[in-house]
Amino acid sequence: MDAKVKFVEGMQFVGYASSGHAIVMDGDHEVGGNDTGSRPSELLLIAIGGCTGMDVISILRKKKQDVTSFEINVHGDKAGNHPKKFETMTLEYVFKGHNLSEEAVKRACELSFEKYCTVRASLAPGVNITYTYKIIEDVENTAL
Amino acid sequence: MDAKVKFVEGMQFVGYASSGHAIVMDGDHEVGGNDTGSRPSELLLIAIGGCTGMDVISILRKKKQDVTSFEINVHGDKAGNHPKKFETMTLEYVFKGHNLSEEAVKRACELSFEKYCTVRASLAPGVNITYTYKIIEDVENTAL
Repeated sequence: MDAKVKFVEGMQFVGYASSGHAIVMDGDHEVGGNDTGSRPSELLLIAIGGCTGMDVISILRKKKQDVTSFEINVHGDKAGNHPKKFETMTLEYVFKGHNLSEEAVKRACELSFEKYCTVRASLAPGVNITYTYKIIEDVENTAL
Repeated sequence: MDAKVKFVEGMQFVGYASSGHAIVMDGDHEVGGNDTGSRPSELLLIAIGGCTGMDVISILRKKKQDVTSFEINVHGDKAGNHPKKFETMTLEYVFKGHNLSEEAVKRACELSFEKYCTVRASLAPGVNITYTYKIIEDVENTAL
């Protein structure tokens, strides 16, 4: 897998990888940036959420679970000193759906975390990563 | 630092973190996606390029180096088996400018790699990350 990251101006960089979708990164004003895009370190939190999210939704579909909405909240704590490495990340999976099986949800999260998630595996063991999940009965919406 | 990643449809997720800039992620057609955005694992390569790129351009500015263009090529190799963890990443820094000091460039790369780059520090030591650099004399363009 290949990526190219090109300097544009100020602290703005544009990067893209093999799939061809470009992403703008920029620093905040304090470091001479213009806040036109994500901080590079934010991409780690977004990447782990997206990576495990794809695993989990895929597993729950195979298990015929009627999920109506799904989001992942990710919190990251960095060290105070340079290089300000992420020390911990905590993920909260929030599922909404109709009669979701807690067993199926629990197993989907476990499988992603222990077996499938490339981003999680690439960050660990240097970063301590944990998760929780929450299931909400959807009394209104129909299935996705 | 916080992020939220929300499922949209198919394998499409949208994520944003504290700075508020949203990023679309999607899978390829083989996994039921529609290729509308980056693969989550691609974000790791883009993030490391952007993170070290910001360090390096900032250091070279302080050293009054006349850089006219700058890009980072990132190559990542994943394991063949799940979770397909990144095993290696190699970065090639390509600098173009007027009379760039090789010593300054070398030191900027070293400082980012060893001291400042949050993304590099968060991936290592699980991922073996190395770099090279290339300096090209710019015979045409004026300074950034």
